[in-house]
Amino acid sequence: MNTMTGAESLVTTLVDSGIDTCFTNPGTSEMHFCAALDKLPGMGCVLGLFEGVVTGAADGYSRIAGRPAATLLHLGPGLGNGLANLHNARRAGSPIVNIVGEHASFHLQYDAPLTSDIEGIARPVSHWVRTSAGPEQVAADGAEAVAAARTAPGQIATLILPADASWGPAQAAARALPVAPAPKLDDAAIETAAAALGSAGDSLLLLGGPALEDPALTWAGAIAAKTGAKLMTTTFMRCMPRGAGRVGAFRLPYVVAQALPQLAPYSRILLVGAKPPVSFFGYPDSPSQLQPEGCEIVPFAEADFDIVDALQRLAERLGARAEDAVLQPYEAVDAPSGPITPEGLGRALAALLPENAIVVDEAVTTGRGFYPATRTARPHHWLANLGGSIGFGTPVGTGAAIAAPDRKVICLEGDGSFMYTAQSLWTQARENCDVTTVIFANRSYNILLGEFAAVGAGAPGQRARDIFEIGRPDIDMVGLAQSLGVPGSRVDDLEGFAKAFTAAMESEGPKVIEVMV
Amino acid sequence: MNTMTGAESLVTTLVDSGIDTCFTNPGTSEMHFCAALDKLPGMGCVLGLFEGVVTGAADGYSRIAGRPAATLLHLGPGLGNGLANLHNARRAGSPIVNIVGEHASFHLQYDAPLTSDIEGIARPVSHWVRTSAGPEQVAADGAEAVAAARTAPGQIATLILPADASWGPAQAAARALPVAPAPKLDDAAIETAAAALGSAGDSLLLLGGPALEDPALTWAGAIAAKTGAKLMTTTFMRCMPRGAGRVGAFRLPYVVAQALPQLAPYSRILLVGAKPPVSFFGYPDSPSQLQPEGCEIVPFAEADFDIVDALQRLAERLGARAEDAVLQPYEAVDAPSGPITPEGLGRALAALLPENAIVVDEAVTTGRGFYPATRTARPHHWLANLGGSIGFGTPVGTGAAIAAPDRKVICLEGDGSFMYTAQSLWTQARENCDVTTVIFANRSYNILLGEFAAVGAGAPGQRARDIFEIGRPDIDMVGLAQSLGVPGSRVDDLEGFAKAFTAAMESEGPKVIEVMV
Repeated sequence: MNTMTGAESLVTTLVDSGIDTCFTNPGTSEMHFCAALDKLPGMGCVLGLFEGVVTGAADGYSRIAGRPAATLLHLGPGLGNGLANLHNARRAGSPIVNIVGEHASFHLQYDAPLTSDIEGIARPVSHWVRTSAGPEQVAADGAEAVAAARTAPGQIATLILPADASWGPAQAAARALPVAPAPKLDDAAIETAAAALGSAGDSLLLLGGPALEDPALTWAGAIAAKTGAKLMTTTFMRCMPRGAGRVGAFRLPYVVAQALPQLAPYSRILLVGAKPPVSFFGYPDSPSQLQPEGCEIVPFAEADFDIVDALQRLAERLGARAEDAVLQPYEAVDAPSGPITPEGLGRALAALLPENAIVVDEAVTTGRGFYPATRTARPHHWLANLGGSIGFGTPVGTGAAIAAPDRKVICLEGDGSFMYTAQSLWTQARENCDVTTVIFANRSYNILLGEFAAVGAGAPGQRARDIFEIGRPDIDMVGLAQSLGVPGSRVDDLEGFAKAFTAAMESEGPKVIEVMV
Repeated sequence: MNTMTGAESLVTTLVDSGIDTCFTNPGTSEMHFCAALDKLPGMGCVLGLFEGVVTGAADGYSRIAGRPAATLLHLGPGLGNGLANLHNARRAGSPIVNIVGEHASFHLQYDAPLTSDIEGIARPVSHWVRTSAGPEQVAADGAEAVAAARTAPGQIATLILPADASWGPAQAAARALPVAPAPKLDDAAIETAAAALGSAGDSLLLLGGPALEDPALTWAGAIAAKTGAKLMTTTFMRCMPRGAGRVGAFRLPYVVAQALPQLAPYSRILLVGAKPPVSFFGYPDSPSQLQPEGCEIVPFAEADFDIVDALQRLAERLGARAEDAVLQPYEAVDAPSGPITPEGLGRALAALLPENAIVVDEAVTTGRGFYPATRTARPHHWLANLGGSIGFGTPVGTGAAIAAPDRKVICLEGDGSFMYTAQSLWTQARENCDVTTVIFANRSYNILLGEFAAVGAGAPGQRARDIFEIGRPDIDMVGLAQSLGVPGSRVDDLEGFAKAFTAAMESEGPKVIEVMV
């Protein structure tokens, strides 16, 4: 006897597999999935007004919750709108299960307006793609999708759900599938790494992916303490615990001219969850590979291996103990005063970040110094963009806040980046997300002025400057926020910033602070 | 001797091939293309703050200008952000040449953060895709891309431009390529159609694609006058001339229950640039195919054929003269007063649309009656969304205004649709586009309430209603517009609407009118 629709069997399966939140911007083909969400317990549902908000929020949620969120998207174009933040999530190793509605199977042959090659759109951003064959298959497909998403270090699984697979009859939900454990390194790899490190002070552990999370980070700290090797993080990180009481690590700079001298001292680089250090873009007159000439690259553990196990065994092989890891002290600083400068803002953040804050960093140029400046601030987590597609910050902050309603989320945003997915503020208002978005308004794609020079294009003329500047008209970020239901304030000196930021930390709910830089 | 960069050879080729406008949201990999735009004459450059604005504006531009616009997009994710409006443009037969930057070829191997399968992302929305092999090939690739875009009825061509193909040396620009003429129907097809139509009053010409533009529409009108056949348009149209002095045609309704009785009287349907009539979505309890049982479908001319030639020859074969086509009269109406209703708004538009206006219709539910209501208004063009992905209207209106700076553009927008690509208002403010955006604020995805019932999902519960409503918080559309540099006003009765709309028509530059429905 049929007791449920395909959609009901799928929602039940997703919930049973540990998915409790669905970010969505649905359409007609997803109506039965919505009806199932409506009827069944266990799945929270969050609306975004644009799919880039939806997929970015799923990324932020999964980074903080440590398990996948679902998205519900409307056919190929809805998935397309979410593609950029899925690219970022894929690069971060964030697990996400996308449910993408499709026309009823019998309707596809008529090539109606919204018909498109959904699998083709999904594949470049997905580790796993499947179009469900019918209502009886949907539950098993859903369980497989979750297992795929949970495969280390975290994957994008996209299940395409024809409308008739959703509304047709199904027998039962499917059981959650076991997640394939991350493979462990063999002993030879441990020995190779131990031999390479020896007692050398000229070795670097380049930490990326899951190596930047606990307890891997602590084991890396222990190895550094024992061997004299230094620790460096990749330029971007999924969800790194840092600040006082955590293992500290310098960060590989984005700018090639700054990265090269940072790497110059090292004779060998052990890769732990990281790829060999390369520049973000290729340039005509600087190298893509950033290690110094003659530096040995030792691939230790790739991001999809069991990094904690690998580092722990390496530490034990070297006789390093977790408690030997050097932890950052807390260094109290006073919030500075005076005119807005990047350095002053960094110091203000170091002074004012509350304990256990979640910082989402998309302050592209203004914020380059914020990470080092907050090294010894109160303990917090730092989330950055591993995919490089801007419009990442406020959606990710939204999802992070929904995953951790008891924590303060701070989005550090460039004004240019913010404008891709400003609709996230509305979702923050609706869900009363405790997110403070700090928008650094330099009224330009400031990074492009540097990049124009870096690629050897010379000095920009009027037409190029016109497309690098986002003034004329200036955007009123406070008015924009208020129009979407989020209170905002504008500050033009460091006292003003400290006051607005402190007030935001002392109250709840979304806020915007526009900082005139 | 090398006299130019690859990018300069490409820009020169595009300009020589008839492309004069580039809509862009660039990044590092596009810097040399920007430098070439900077240096060389002939190409206007328009910045969008989000790529969905860029691709939609290119669509609007090409619909009005009748020739392709270019876009300049930043790698795979930038293209991804523009995908939904490229899907819509592809469905409309709008010609667009996308230039998508890619990493320098030597840098791809390092899998840097923004690396993705750009061809894979491009293919589902493109008729033509190529990654340029180097600076010497770029100019010829550009000429081919333009020729591909201009192939009838209009195509999407995507040229992927590695950074080193852009900055490397090139010899010369390429000549514009001839555009393949649209194939002509053979005589047998004309005879078949003539025989099918005979003198039958129970025949319908279903007009779509280029059949909805002049002079094809006039020839269709002549055929109708001669044979007694009726004319009907597809539900959506690329750029249809209508109103007083133009051939009139009823429109196939979106709602299945309304479409079926419209088609019921006909024994045969001649397809002219249109596919057989099908519902927008498949439903459990209604047919996908909309023609009545026993109705003969006569495929006459597909959209990529020479439709004007086909209709003219059919008319001549039937002895129909162009001057016999029945043209719509102008019917003066007074702007109504009283509470806001869809009918009242339709009548107000009929009264107030200025001559030669460009109307972009994305007023999803509120606006279903606006098209019939304006049948005998002053002559204007009507642009609608053939791809069904919302977030189409204000970008398309922006591009239309740039193509026709001397015409009034009126975007009719649902509030839900508007929020996908609200950033377009900023581009309108910067470019001083003469666009009046009328936002119908019902504070819901109202269409989904109907669709939820139509797919048999019953009555929505609280959780489903939560994701169909976009109130809580209500969006302040006037404040949002003002924050982006566009003046706005809010109206809550028909007098207020008439006053605000008239004022917008009598002044220049972008405006927003929020209509509380």
